Amino acid sequence: MTDASTNMRLKLPITCFILEIIIIILFGVLVQYDEGTDAKLWHDRNHSSHSDYDNDFYYRYPSFQDVHVMIFIGFGFLMTFLQRYGFSSVGFNFLIAAFALQWATLMQGFFHGMHGGKIHIGVESMINADFCTGSVLISFGAVLGKTSPVQLLLMAIFEVTLFAVNEFIVLSVLGAKDAGGSMTIHTFGAYFGLIVARVLYRPNLDKSKHRNSSVYHSDLFAMIGTLYLWMFWPSFNSAITAHGDDQHRTAMNTYYSLAACTLSSYAMSALTAHDGKLDMVHIQNAALAGGVAAGTAGEMMLTPFGSMIVGFVAGIISVLGFKYLSPVLESKLKIQDTCGVHNLHGMPGILGAIVGAIVAALATADVYGEGLTDVFPDVASGEISASDQGVRQIISLAVTLGIALLGGLIVGFILKLPIFGAPPDTICFEDSIYWECHRWQPSRSE
Amino acid sequence: MTDASTNMRLKLPITCFILEIIIIILFGVLVQYDEGTDAKLWHDRNHSSHSDYDNDFYYRYPSFQDVHVMIFIGFGFLMTFLQRYGFSSVGFNFLIAAFALQWATLMQGFFHGMHGGKIHIGVESMINADFCTGSVLISFGAVLGKTSPVQLLLMAIFEVTLFAVNEFIVLSVLGAKDAGGSMTIHTFGAYFGLIVARVLYRPNLDKSKHRNSSVYHSDLFAMIGTLYLWMFWPSFNSAITAHGDDQHRTAMNTYYSLAACTLSSYAMSALTAHDGKLDMVHIQNAALAGGVAAGTAGEMMLTPFGSMIVGFVAGIISVLGFKYLSPVLESKLKIQDTCGVHNLHGMPGILGAIVGAIVAALATADVYGEGLTDVFPDVASGEISASDQGVRQIISLAVTLGIALLGGLIVGFILKLPIFGAPPDTICFEDSIYWECHRWQPSRSE
Amino acid sequence: MTDASTNMRLKLPITCFILEIIIIILFGVLVQYDEGTDAKLWHDRNHSSHSDYDNDFYYRYPSFQDVHVMIFIGFGFLMTFLQRYGFSSVGFNFLIAAFALQWATLMQGFFHGMHGGKIHIGVESMINADFCTGSVLISFGAVLGKTSPVQLLLMAIFEVTLFAVNEFIVLSVLGAKDAGGSMTIHTFGAYFGLIVARVLYRPNLDKSKHRNSSVYHSDLFAMIGTLYLWMFWPSFNSAITAHGDDQHRTAMNTYYSLAACTLSSYAMSALTAHDGKLDMVHIQNAALAGGVAAGTAGEMMLTPFGSMIVGFVAGIISVLGFKYLSPVLESKLKIQDTCGVHNLHGMPGILGAIVGAIVAALATADVYGEGLTDVFPDVASGEISASDQGVRQIISLAVTLGIALLGGLIVGFILKLPIFGAPPDTICFEDSIYWECHRWQPSRSE
Repeated sequence: MTDASTNMRLKLPITCFILEIIIIILFGVLVQYDEGTDAKLWHDRNHSSHSDYDNDFYYRYPSFQDVHVMIFIGFGFLMTFLQRYGFSSVGFNFLIAAFALQWATLMQGFFHGMHGGKIHIGVESMINADFCTGSVLISFGAVLGKTSPVQLLLMAIFEVTLFAVNEFIVLSVLGAKDAGGSMTIHTFGAYFGLIVARVLYRPNLDKSKHRNSSVYHSDLFAMIGTLYLWMFWPSFNSAITAHGDDQHRTAMNTYYSLAACTLSSYAMSALTAHDGKLDMVHIQNAALAGGVAAGTAGEMMLTPFGSMIVGFVAGIISVLGFKYLSPVLESKLKIQDTCGVHNLHGMPGILGAIVGAIVAALATADVYGEGLTDVFPDVASGEISASDQGVRQIISLAVTLGIALLGGLIVGFILKLPIFGAPPDTICFEDSIYWECHRWQPSRSE
Repeated sequence: MTDASTNMRLKLPITCFILEIIIIILFGVLVQYDEGTDAKLWHDRNHSSHSDYDNDFYYRYPSFQDVHVMIFIGFGFLMTFLQRYGFSSVGFNFLIAAFALQWATLMQGFFHGMHGGKIHIGVESMINADFCTGSVLISFGAVLGKTSPVQLLLMAIFEVTLFAVNEFIVLSVLGAKDAGGSMTIHTFGAYFGLIVARVLYRPNLDKSKHRNSSVYHSDLFAMIGTLYLWMFWPSFNSAITAHGDDQHRTAMNTYYSLAACTLSSYAMSALTAHDGKLDMVHIQNAALAGGVAAGTAGEMMLTPFGSMIVGFVAGIISVLGFKYLSPVLESKLKIQDTCGVHNLHGMPGILGAIVGAIVAALATADVYGEGLTDVFPDVASGEISASDQGVRQIISLAVTLGIALLGGLIVGFILKLPIFGAPPDTICFEDSIYWECHRWQPSRSE
Repeated sequence: MTDASTNMRLKLPITCFILEIIIIILFGVLVQYDEGTDAKLWHDRNHSSHSDYDNDFYYRYPSFQDVHVMIFIGFGFLMTFLQRYGFSSVGFNFLIAAFALQWATLMQGFFHGMHGGKIHIGVESMINADFCTGSVLISFGAVLGKTSPVQLLLMAIFEVTLFAVNEFIVLSVLGAKDAGGSMTIHTFGAYFGLIVARVLYRPNLDKSKHRNSSVYHSDLFAMIGTLYLWMFWPSFNSAITAHGDDQHRTAMNTYYSLAACTLSSYAMSALTAHDGKLDMVHIQNAALAGGVAAGTAGEMMLTPFGSMIVGFVAGIISVLGFKYLSPVLESKLKIQDTCGVHNLHGMPGILGAIVGAIVAALATADVYGEGLTDVFPDVASGEISASDQGVRQIISLAVTLGIALLGGLIVGFILKLPIFGAPPDTICFEDSIYWECHRWQPSRSE
């Protein structure tokens, strides 16, 4: 089932070794422990009087681990729904995530973590690196089944870099807020991936369509991914917000947004089926849209009431997208979006960005009190008005979309070069092209 | 495989939309951030002098996340043991849990969280909502495979409401202690569900009996649920106990109770099989009884020694229940208990309540020191004696059983109305009645 | 499929009951709550002025839960790769872990936790008990599929005891550092298990070779185990290091070691396959070697740069071991290492020990500052030099290897006694010999 062009014996090892060696050298030259991880700095009594219990490890690491589970188990298993692509779904997710988090440490550090020519790292940079990785995995969902691991690693290099640029512009230059990444992670990752998928359009993909579907057990494996994403999304959105009420509020808003989203997803799934039967695709994906849509406004005084409305709408939009929009995207716009990332991350991401802009524009000192400084520092200092903050948010959405679309276009054409071992149209969505499959029995479907 | 009566195309969306819209309106009117989640209240320097690190988020949220995993992965996958009901097990668990946690926030808030006409919420109310949800999922286990999602949502509405009433009576009126919910969660959920199952008795259920069993992979999926429940049960029992030694002690007692329970479950499973072979049903369920049975006394000075004895006995009782009592319940009392919740939650719950009463009655200031105030405040203040506390515990068990049985009876008859789309006797334990099953192959058993 | 000799009806219950009753009696006589879990001691205002928030529960318990998941889900599911041994992999892992953590509490308490004739326990002892259990589960991997549960429980009794002896010598007598257990856990567990496997050598094991392989879904189940081990390894290595920068740094070093290891594992897996296809065995195992190899030096000032080099090398060694060394071990040394623990825990453990010795020998007050006291107290106090510490580390490795090899030899011969129900050569790697398998269909391979 393998021909020479898809043989990874040299391509993959060379790519991995070169990338890892470059990363190790750059870490050796550029990266240092930050104050919380360095033995000498932390214990320097002249400059600090903290207790060991004040180390940020205790206030961020549990959130980090939840995010980590979402990246490796959540994204990995969510994509195992394909009947014969489970090894690649979990395995390539693992590979590109392990690469991307290292590369993201460097790129994000380069853009906003330099201290005297060195990148300082600790638990907060680890969370940010995992966040950036999440964006790459969203794009992976759009091209799932149609790309080689070498293509995916290349995509990760460019996407991580552009992610760091966009994040720097949005958060540092424009001063927007986006703690859970409705814009920087979800919108960026989705539209980047969709454009890559567009450039890699395969007119004859229906030659592999018998594999582009789920079987009973593969849908159960995918539910492991769904549930871990769903359960830990409150940790994701709150992982890098300010300490105290901010983290607490963000987690709770996300919790209620997801709960409301789940009910509207189930309702819409039954309503849009002619026989009223629930569709696993909707449950696995749309029920998560509430987490995406609460990614920007979650840290604001959105209230549980507002969170539920956002989640409720996100679930409806997402199911409608799967049902009616995805087929159009494929037939008219030639975007073959394997996992439907447009419905889970694209539209809900934009919704989240808009909600964030509105809630920001409505912020008042009366509602936030002294807490306004944590959420909107420039508004609290009187530098800008709340409606200015809302404008910043909308501009950030536009910038994010622009960088994602332009970046995805260029990267798509790079990946299209016929030297990276992409599978032929007849053997897409198929593990055995890249994996040793013991006792392979192609006649058995499950 | 669907006839008109089980078609969910209108029933399920209407139910979900009405419920969610009512919830959203009630949240808009009644629910507010508590002091730990509100930006203004938390930062109000006139009334507090805390650091952001003192926010209860940091002392409850990791426990909350463990409980959350138990509710969605633990209960959901535990029930996937049925060969053709995995989608429904995980999927309906997901749906009713997402609904119940919202409804529970309102009901529990109404009974014991009102502040000036408003319900104040934060991480502690989130844990309590998940706890209440757990009770509904226990009842779900008794009726698994024989009920439509609309019936399950209706059951959840009533059960959550009655749970909140019972919890209020037991904890606030009677002043009993039940941190891990041996009574309020497990005994309540089990007997409520068993009576519902009794009312919904199907004399011809054996028409579906070929589906009412496991296959190899479904038992492995179920072990995911079992192990997550087992591992995180220490977090469950300790999630809302007092800070400090109380949480620490509760977690450790539960850890040892579960370990001892596992050994006695394996022993009894082999001992009660004529050929000495272990039965997955026992391992998946009985090994958890130690967590249930430590739910009341876990926060007390039960000692690891006492915890192990409790767990050891719970495992034995539970396996004996599966082996000898469940068949009798079905044949004589006409209770078709799909998951055997009587053996995992019912009897171990009562055992836990009795152990709690005994340990409470034996409490002395000599053993608890100043810590008596955290565990038994009324005993510490001299208002009542330790043996009075023991009596309170036993009365609470009786009240819990009474409300569960009476409530289950009424709710069972409501669910029996032939308008909620229950499956016919011939198509119980079957996903394809409510789910789109891609590439369905009924001739293949796995 | 069962004959009298493998019938567990009396053997297993008797073993479990005797062991559990002995444990309960010893707990009753010897074990007490420590200061953090005892109501009276914690609240004793004469001797302490701490807040409830200072309880070590909040600074260790999240790490404990991550370790707990590694022990029960991680190890359990990692071994489900065998096509017909999933029940036993997860189920015997569960049984022997539940036993070993109780026994370890006693043995470790006996050697280094006695206070006035009593063993004091709390969250730190729980972590240590789980660590010791991990060592037993590593050995389980070497003999997987070829041993009865009674043999495994016997092995656990002896191995836990010897583990506690070795740990006492290495950490308390020799004063070596080994927070993540490269030596005490991984090297010890691996070589102990390998020698047991050597003594239990079965010349006719190829009669069961058709079951000694994976199928598609069993490899996906195994990936659940792999990923949980991978994600939570940073928590494992940092779980019992000193508070503050030490835990923070250890977690981060491990994170980068694992990421680098993943890339080199994928590279080597493709490079060593004649058709360039990735092998699930390598991905499931070698990608974890970076965690093992960072187990000693992780808490030191290894730097992320150094951690990546260590992980990178560990992944290469591990894949080479699976590919070229394991077949030689089996054919020449007659060691049938079912899971390849030599490649995942043995060689990477020795690598980790050597790296630890080198990094210790290079420690300077200039690099560690005041933090030197936490990492190398005897160097900080001037009692020994850094190079002395390096020598201590190497001696500890030698002692660990010696006790593991000698202990494994003796225990292997004990387990070889023909009274413990070991499976015959023709029915190894087969669940149905010890488990009730509903609707068994031996003709179907999956």
